Amino acid sequence: MTDTTTTGTDLERRLARLEERTRALEDEREVTRLILSYGPLVDSGSADAVAGLWDADGVYDVDELLMRGRAQIAAMVRSDAHQGWIAGGCAHFVGPPHVTVTGDDATAVSYSLMVTHGDGGFALRRATANHWTLHRADSGWRIVTRTARVLDGRPESPALLASGVCAPVASGERA
Amino acid sequence: MTDTTTTGTDLERRLARLEERTRALEDEREVTRLILSYGPLVDSGSADAVAGLWDADGVYDVDELLMRGRAQIAAMVRSDAHQGWIAGGCAHFVGPPHVTVTGDDATAVSYSLMVTHGDGGFALRRATANHWTLHRADSGWRIVTRTARVLDGRPESPALLASGVCAPVASGERA
Amino acid sequence: MTDTTTTGTDLERRLARLEERTRALEDEREVTRLILSYGPLVDSGSADAVAGLWDADGVYDVDELLMRGRAQIAAMVRSDAHQGWIAGGCAHFVGPPHVTVTGDDATAVSYSLMVTHGDGGFALRRATANHWTLHRADSGWRIVTRTARVLDGRPESPALLASGVCAPVASGERA
Repeated sequence: MTDTTTTGTDLERRLARLEERTRALEDEREVTRLILSYGPLVDSGSADAVAGLWDADGVYDVDELLMRGRAQIAAMVRSDAHQGWIAGGCAHFVGPPHVTVTGDDATAVSYSLMVTHGDGGFALRRATANHWTLHRADSGWRIVTRTARVLDGRPESPALLASGVCAPVASGERA
Repeated sequence: MTDTTTTGTDLERRLARLEERTRALEDEREVTRLILSYGPLVDSGSADAVAGLWDADGVYDVDELLMRGRAQIAAMVRSDAHQGWIAGGCAHFVGPPHVTVTGDDATAVSYSLMVTHGDGGFALRRATANHWTLHRADSGWRIVTRTARVLDGRPESPALLASGVCAPVASGERA
Repeated sequence: MTDTTTTGTDLERRLARLEERTRALEDEREVTRLILSYGPLVDSGSADAVAGLWDADGVYDVDELLMRGRAQIAAMVRSDAHQGWIAGGCAHFVGPPHVTVTGDDATAVSYSLMVTHGDGGFALRRATANHWTLHRADSGWRIVTRTARVLDGRPESPALLASGVCAPVASGERA
């Protein structure tokens, strides 16, 4: 296949490059998986597990409520309001995140839908723009900040979406 | 780059480890892809293809209907009820699954939304919690069980979500 | 671990195979990521960035509107109609795509939900079947065609879903 003599150094270099590429894929997969665990944990009322997705001093900033640190996040899950959603039927449906990993830091953008059940069946209570920043801790990736803004026309919500997704490099003509 | 002499044995060990890591990424990708093919196949009435996602004796357990084996799953797709959904307009929108692979077995948790079209436009008919178990067959991954429960407040639905998603290892203080 | 002598040629062959497998995973990840950037870019009115997801002569074929080339795609984002959706509150929620990469080409199938905000809260305006074809350009993957058809009962929409998802290889008995 190769017409040059393959030396140990060549193999070593290719192996090191592959290790980097595999690590990049694994990091993106771990960040995605962490984000996707939010819905199942919050909709099952797993308060400590939800809080454990964040760094010890992580921030969860929703337009309706600002939470600082794990105790406040767990308290939200245990609140009467949230327990009421679970009792009535509720889905925090988080869409596939668009993740960007840079070393030990990552950002992600995703949509989420909050679907609630009531007498009239299911209703779409919220459609939300989410911007996540994450950091690699000793025990794995954790959320540093999650900023969530409802997409009800307020300008900060589209801005949040744009802030986390870069346009691909333009090639040739532009629109 | 390395200040130690790299021996063939070192390279061999690193290569074997990379092969394992790549296999793990591929497995998770194949399980995810299998799950994501359910919606397009069921909404296009591809009855045999839907049934072929399951093991020959696989189980599809929905709160409304229990199906055992491929013949019963295909029969559901061919039923008047399901054909009526397709004729009217229907989306089985499956969210990104949270997948855990362990050797030749896997579990996954996902949400799904059933959206139907009618005179008044689109309606959200169901929001559902899904728990999947899968097995690696000779010809690739197949579903062993899919358990789906509507999120209408019945306690088994949140329990299903919690059962498939482990909390990350706690680091430092707890909430 | 191996009871045969591992030669440099063996290592070289395994390394080359791993490089191919990693490339396949990266390609699928890049195509997925490109598709997932559509929603955040279009809902933030990033007209040139949306257009830049397509090839210079790419096609965006929606049942309501046919766009050829980047200028027409950017014009749609800048249109009064689209700017009105953003001003009122809007989510183009794209589900996780089912991607198939073949060399420098790829196809993908996904659902999308268009959620709009109005006086009565959030409404589900459209559920749409999407079929994507993509090509690897010098600067990365770009969309060649995106065909979107509303799932309102018209037969072409389910056909679009079926066209992009192959059934797994059947093993043993058939339904």
